[in-house]
Amino acid sequence: MAQKPSIPKGTRDFGPVEMAKRNYIFNTIREVYALYGFRPIETPAMENLSTLMGKYGEEGDKLLFKILNSGDFRSAVTPDEYAERSSAQLAPRFCEKGLRYDLTVPFARYVVQHREELQMPFKRYQIQPVWRADRPQKGRYREFYQCDADVVGSDSLLNEVELMQIVDEVFTRFGIRVCIKINNRKILSGIAEMIGAADKIVDITVAIDKLDKIGLDNVNAELREAGLSEEAVAKLQPIISLSGTNDEKLATMRTVLAESETGLKGVEEVAFVLQSLQASNLKNAIELDLTLARGLNYYTGCIFEVKALDVQIGSITGGGRYDNLTGIFGLPGLSGVGISFGADRIYDVLGQLDLYPRETQSGVSLLFINFGASEAACCLRLAAEARRAGIATEVYPDSVKMKKQMSYANAQQVPFVALVGESEMAEGCLALKNMATGDQQRVTIAEAIAIIKDFSQSK
Amino acid sequence: MAQKPSIPKGTRDFGPVEMAKRNYIFNTIREVYALYGFRPIETPAMENLSTLMGKYGEEGDKLLFKILNSGDFRSAVTPDEYAERSSAQLAPRFCEKGLRYDLTVPFARYVVQHREELQMPFKRYQIQPVWRADRPQKGRYREFYQCDADVVGSDSLLNEVELMQIVDEVFTRFGIRVCIKINNRKILSGIAEMIGAADKIVDITVAIDKLDKIGLDNVNAELREAGLSEEAVAKLQPIISLSGTNDEKLATMRTVLAESETGLKGVEEVAFVLQSLQASNLKNAIELDLTLARGLNYYTGCIFEVKALDVQIGSITGGGRYDNLTGIFGLPGLSGVGISFGADRIYDVLGQLDLYPRETQSGVSLLFINFGASEAACCLRLAAEARRAGIATEVYPDSVKMKKQMSYANAQQVPFVALVGESEMAEGCLALKNMATGDQQRVTIAEAIAIIKDFSQSK
Repeated sequence: MAQKPSIPKGTRDFGPVEMAKRNYIFNTIREVYALYGFRPIETPAMENLSTLMGKYGEEGDKLLFKILNSGDFRSAVTPDEYAERSSAQLAPRFCEKGLRYDLTVPFARYVVQHREELQMPFKRYQIQPVWRADRPQKGRYREFYQCDADVVGSDSLLNEVELMQIVDEVFTRFGIRVCIKINNRKILSGIAEMIGAADKIVDITVAIDKLDKIGLDNVNAELREAGLSEEAVAKLQPIISLSGTNDEKLATMRTVLAESETGLKGVEEVAFVLQSLQASNLKNAIELDLTLARGLNYYTGCIFEVKALDVQIGSITGGGRYDNLTGIFGLPGLSGVGISFGADRIYDVLGQLDLYPRETQSGVSLLFINFGASEAACCLRLAAEARRAGIATEVYPDSVKMKKQMSYANAQQVPFVALVGESEMAEGCLALKNMATGDQQRVTIAEAIAIIKDFSQSK
Repeated sequence: MAQKPSIPKGTRDFGPVEMAKRNYIFNTIREVYALYGFRPIETPAMENLSTLMGKYGEEGDKLLFKILNSGDFRSAVTPDEYAERSSAQLAPRFCEKGLRYDLTVPFARYVVQHREELQMPFKRYQIQPVWRADRPQKGRYREFYQCDADVVGSDSLLNEVELMQIVDEVFTRFGIRVCIKINNRKILSGIAEMIGAADKIVDITVAIDKLDKIGLDNVNAELREAGLSEEAVAKLQPIISLSGTNDEKLATMRTVLAESETGLKGVEEVAFVLQSLQASNLKNAIELDLTLARGLNYYTGCIFEVKALDVQIGSITGGGRYDNLTGIFGLPGLSGVGISFGADRIYDVLGQLDLYPRETQSGVSLLFINFGASEAACCLRLAAEARRAGIATEVYPDSVKMKKQMSYANAQQVPFVALVGESEMAEGCLALKNMATGDQQRVTIAEAIAIIKDFSQSK
């Protein structure tokens, strides 16, 4: 016998039970996006490598899955060249295409390519898989879904406000309690400027970003290693350890950043977003967190991240404002802002907190047991009536032992089973069994439909 | 300025309008599958090449998109080997993975890999993209969706019956009039046997399959070229030209195939399926077509294909019974039967016949015009109320010229626009404009919600 087949490491199969849960997540996010006027798009799994390369840093280029040119790919590289070149040099010669690494770069490419057809501001959402040749580990996959929403072509902070409302609404629908953290890249730039280390902004944000994980002393050590003077490190302390309400923090930062135009602009942007949200009664807390940095360098304004309160897990949603993402494709001056829900982590959180709705766990509502050819013919007709009434229904296809058919019903968690034997056929009725209570009654198909509909609505 | 970016040939972007239509297609198919007890699964885009190679014939192997091994792929092939080998020989050395070519082979792999968890019969549907390095041409893409449903682990012909009911239901919901064609591979084998050319079964089916396209004379010429004797060709004539009702055709075939056990079995299988379907009052005609062959060699029993009656286009759905698909992965003896809807062709047919429902064409129901900061703050609150009532709503994010905002509303085909200026704010109301009629009235947000809901329901 052949070896049991398998799938590439870091990839997953999703069976019916997992699919029901995942669809619950995607549909919830989709519904809320649509409620706010975001409209769906899809882009191809494969993009030209020229679109993808250089957009995710050197490390990102290595993590791109590249697709071998079809046909005679070998003709692009002579044996002499092959002997002299490295894998990294050869890959772009053998491959013109790669699998998308995220949804943001394909979106920027989409906006530039279709700019003549698009009405600005353009609000799109996109829920599709992405692929990264990362080392697989717990909770990290080589194929995973992203659920992004972005607005391009509008500088207005109302977009930030609405995205935070969306985040609040989605997690409220899920029943997951979260804290939404907000910061602004201009504030971080202002801080770097203020302590005389504008050129060290990346090092500073990377170090501060780790505060939760490694503690204040280690953060300070990293700052010194990055070349910050003792004076600069000292100046940073009140900012890193800043506490109090959002209003208190904003007041402090207005003082600290009094001489940085950029910094003050960041403070006012955050103040506007927080103030607008106050009026809209979010169900979840939103907190100005000056240590929030977000790794991606294309962010230029507000940035946000969402933490679950009741489960220990990394950020489950994130996003921010980027002022020039389409510039790399030749269309400068188009500002955008977006968020991305982390479906895989949300999946885990919903599971750990046992928050999946009951209906995500079952298949059909009614199964007809098969007692033989003539009975099955009768069941087909009755099943058609149930389906016309909108009830998902199966007829067991084989007239095998009753026990086997009932164990199928149990495994599928079917709530009702219909038995149609000779006497039921003669009387034009069926025996309807409630699988939870064991109750069995003789009813017409119309009565059975009413009972099942009643049951589904009462769930 | 950089060159305008593009996507790989044979791939497509789907914008909001196309997405709405595609989702209408996928959701309709999904709903009907679920109504019959099929449950969704998803498999990874990448499969091991060992899973895919050799399953689609030599031509198929060439059409697989192969993924370059990440990291140091070059170390697998020395410069000497590189100099000596062809592209076809090198590809499997540089690549361990490929993109899936269809959903059937990954499904067979899935069933074998997860057989201990699966309850038989296992009814699954799967709607995912597949990739083929075909030469792109009109209506043929390198990335396209398949919408498959299969049952494995049951020999019962009731599965064939239900799949035909599903086909009938899906096209009835679409409003596309179709003819469902059915045949059986055992009948074709019986015919080949009967004319003394059992070894020529493939040539015979390929030739007969072309009857519609090239006519009887050319089919006969092909049969002779394939090495069939004049006697065999003569014997085939009454079968190829067979006409009449399904019952008349079945009666003839029972006589013609009287001495072929296999052939007779095929006839009885088709007779059972047709008889069962007669009782279920299909909306569309189903026709026994002895010239239907279907290219794929794994089919062993009933085969079917669907033709649109009102549009000139190839088959828009197809499928059949296969007795040993999981055998290639080491699990013999598991019979399956499935269908696949051709989403891209259905998309074209719905478009040509103008059958898309109206609601697949619009975005939100309500847009708030933005007159400035304080008005916008008020609009945010009113928009939140409309959304709580389930009405998809946008607030235009920038306070730009009225004309620009109204042209956005027109482009998005928004049915209602809300205007909230100083006087409306003072009175706690809004001016609601019906974009189709031009009517404008002063109402409270509660009244506006009622009007919009009324409008949506009356559509």
